[in-house]
Amino acid sequence: MNLLLIAKIIGAALSLEAVLLILPLLFAVLYNESLMPFTIPIAICFVAGSLLMRITDKENKLQSKEGLVATGLTWIALSLCGMLPYLIGGVVSSPVDAFFETVSGFTTTGSTILTDVEAVPKSILLWRSFTHWIGGMGILVFMSAIVKFKGGSQMNLMKAESPGPVVSKLVPKAGDTARLLYFIYTLLTIVTLIVLLILKMPFFDAVCMTFGAAGTGGFGVLNDSCASYTIAQQIAITVAMFTFGINFNFFFFIMVRKATQAFKMEEVRLYFAIAFIAVVMISVNLMKQSGFEHPLLSVQNAAFHVSSIMTTTGYATDDINNWPRLSQCAIIILMLCGACAGSTGGGYKVSRVLLMAKAFARDISVQLCPDRVRKVHIDGKPIDENLIRSTGVYTFAYLGVMIFSVILIMPEGKDAMSTVTAVIATFNNIGPGIGFNGSMGNFAPFSDYSKLILSADMLIGRLEILPILGLFSKETWRKF
Amino acid sequence: MNLLLIAKIIGAALSLEAVLLILPLLFAVLYNESLMPFTIPIAICFVAGSLLMRITDKENKLQSKEGLVATGLTWIALSLCGMLPYLIGGVVSSPVDAFFETVSGFTTTGSTILTDVEAVPKSILLWRSFTHWIGGMGILVFMSAIVKFKGGSQMNLMKAESPGPVVSKLVPKAGDTARLLYFIYTLLTIVTLIVLLILKMPFFDAVCMTFGAAGTGGFGVLNDSCASYTIAQQIAITVAMFTFGINFNFFFFIMVRKATQAFKMEEVRLYFAIAFIAVVMISVNLMKQSGFEHPLLSVQNAAFHVSSIMTTTGYATDDINNWPRLSQCAIIILMLCGACAGSTGGGYKVSRVLLMAKAFARDISVQLCPDRVRKVHIDGKPIDENLIRSTGVYTFAYLGVMIFSVILIMPEGKDAMSTVTAVIATFNNIGPGIGFNGSMGNFAPFSDYSKLILSADMLIGRLEILPILGLFSKETWRKF
Repeated sequence: MNLLLIAKIIGAALSLEAVLLILPLLFAVLYNESLMPFTIPIAICFVAGSLLMRITDKENKLQSKEGLVATGLTWIALSLCGMLPYLIGGVVSSPVDAFFETVSGFTTTGSTILTDVEAVPKSILLWRSFTHWIGGMGILVFMSAIVKFKGGSQMNLMKAESPGPVVSKLVPKAGDTARLLYFIYTLLTIVTLIVLLILKMPFFDAVCMTFGAAGTGGFGVLNDSCASYTIAQQIAITVAMFTFGINFNFFFFIMVRKATQAFKMEEVRLYFAIAFIAVVMISVNLMKQSGFEHPLLSVQNAAFHVSSIMTTTGYATDDINNWPRLSQCAIIILMLCGACAGSTGGGYKVSRVLLMAKAFARDISVQLCPDRVRKVHIDGKPIDENLIRSTGVYTFAYLGVMIFSVILIMPEGKDAMSTVTAVIATFNNIGPGIGFNGSMGNFAPFSDYSKLILSADMLIGRLEILPILGLFSKETWRKF
Repeated sequence: MNLLLIAKIIGAALSLEAVLLILPLLFAVLYNESLMPFTIPIAICFVAGSLLMRITDKENKLQSKEGLVATGLTWIALSLCGMLPYLIGGVVSSPVDAFFETVSGFTTTGSTILTDVEAVPKSILLWRSFTHWIGGMGILVFMSAIVKFKGGSQMNLMKAESPGPVVSKLVPKAGDTARLLYFIYTLLTIVTLIVLLILKMPFFDAVCMTFGAAGTGGFGVLNDSCASYTIAQQIAITVAMFTFGINFNFFFFIMVRKATQAFKMEEVRLYFAIAFIAVVMISVNLMKQSGFEHPLLSVQNAAFHVSSIMTTTGYATDDINNWPRLSQCAIIILMLCGACAGSTGGGYKVSRVLLMAKAFARDISVQLCPDRVRKVHIDGKPIDENLIRSTGVYTFAYLGVMIFSVILIMPEGKDAMSTVTAVIATFNNIGPGIGFNGSMGNFAPFSDYSKLILSADMLIGRLEILPILGLFSKETWRKF
């Protein structure tokens, strides 16, 4: 394995992080807050990054294995440096807490160990939300957009970092695809920000909420998440979250004026259908049993939470802990579905649900008439049987990782609902669970041991298992 | 589709049921109870069965599709006739309740709607437990052992009815395999009965408990399940349940003196390993938090319940509702694992866990080094990629059916734990859930609507999805 090249990539990522840290630094200047939490990490990232980037290597082509390992290690390195502002700013004292919070940011999870968000300096809150935006589309995708690699290297990096069963190139070149993705991402982010500002959200809140919604992260700046925003602002956030959970191919098709093709995307249709059914079911349940004064408020709150959970964002306008158990059940089921592939959202992904449901229907019909050979089709294209096989194996691994994590955390002795939903919420990059770690609570009560397991779950979930578990494979470290 | 042949098979199964109903009739004579609950069903089964069997058909070779449909319809027909003793005997007044109880019997689930088992006539309790024994190894497997079909017909029936990802023939001919399976089954059943009698369990209890353990069903004859049996008797039941959850190939290998090969079976090893780890974890948790006077009692109770849940039997010596939440969590995870394929146990099956875990390890290594082609091996044999694909799809469908059932039952408004565990417990053919439907409770509080959904879940779970869902496919009913 080409360790030098991997080190070089990590170096480039750290240099990029140094540049990105300038944004919160500017806010620190603006709000007259301490600059130290950012100047020191910028220096560290810059020095470490430039040193690693100086490595010269004959061959700079990345193989599949190196793509995976580079991705896994880069995310860990970014988190280790990204946690410095919390520690230097004195927001948290424990490195484990800072690591948890940073991983939660980059992986767009949004689980927090902070007990009083409103007491944190604004520049640090901004960095916290900005990590969502950086992690949402992926830092290596960003790098692919600005740095040039040889051969298929970019594709191997993008494959390892991008969520979903297949990575489709929008345009022939991987670098162009990356630039296009970031163009769409930035455009939608700016639109969201403008809308929130028009709706009179304070500037600082609007920036942070936009980053959180765009990356489908979920870190807020108020202790009650989104409950104290106006209804118009809440609706805008609902729409924003839902938008960033859509497969970006959809926006690409619209951009190139192929709207019909966009609306024919089966994954997007299923995504809308699931959301619609969930909103109806939860609204009805909330109207019957909860304390909203007006029935429409039930619908609005149901829509907000469905959008928030399905896109794996995790914002809240109400305390789900007080919802009727059936709505909670529906929310947990939504947690297991996730957003579209090729979006900034996490989870199992709607495209996998679609693929496996179709494969299942096909398998039934093949069992009934074994003579006929039938292919599974999505968007009119036949699907490779290997993709069905590997998605099936992924389904098993997806469950396996969650069950194994529950077993690891169980002995800590926290209540079952909090334990199980903590794993589901972190592994699917959602954020809050149900219980003491609910939308109005936090993850602080967990032990350091559990916080590390949950941090690993966030990384494994965001990078879809392989890049992190691959680090622990014998195969990875054999004969390099 | 050859509907005449399917009708003929159903006829044969009903005739067989008439014969099987003689056993509870004898007990009714023995205990001086009403004979009507059995004489009428015997007459009905006999007349309907002989009429259907008179159908003559040129071609009596069963295709795959017909095997599936015949299996699905036979199980429904058997349950519709098998519920008559409950109705005629006045044990239950509602046909839905009687259907639920009978399906629960044949599918070896063991969920009950009876609120006071001890008040039910003994002959009817015997029939109730006997349905477990009949359903355990499968009624069509039984038929294959005694009736002769042409060509691959028997294999198509056995495939549809036998649990597990692959049906392996022990000996070249399907009919001989069926006879061999029933020979092992009967032998082990007799041994269990003798052991229980030696341990001084009353004769009637011993017979019913043997049937329940052998079929991994779980219907008991006391309101407290197994709590009032002696510790020696409980230990004997623990061993018995665990034995019937082992792949019957294991016993075949031992029979033909290939013990080394038997103990090398990877599925069986994994089955032992999972059970061992679960017993240790739950014992430790129970020692800390529950009220057993002696630590060894914690181990004994943990072992009993692990054996009971993992084999999907459902007997209980203690009320799991009072266990610490963590042990409950472990029990729910065990519910999702199930027993070995080719045993009388239900659930997802250890062999699928093994297969998918190996496929996942392989997929990781292929991602790391895409150049090398590697096959998954189990017991030294390479596994067909199609089997991995279809098992993956099965995994998705397995989860999908459960989630869909929860969504269907949720609106009834029962508490979430009872709702979710009711679906898990019926679909995996376990029996009791956690909540009001726990081991000391019953399923009576559910509405008729939910009882029918849960009945369908039991059938879908026992026949592993296809034979029942296949009945609703357009493909099945097209051009016959």
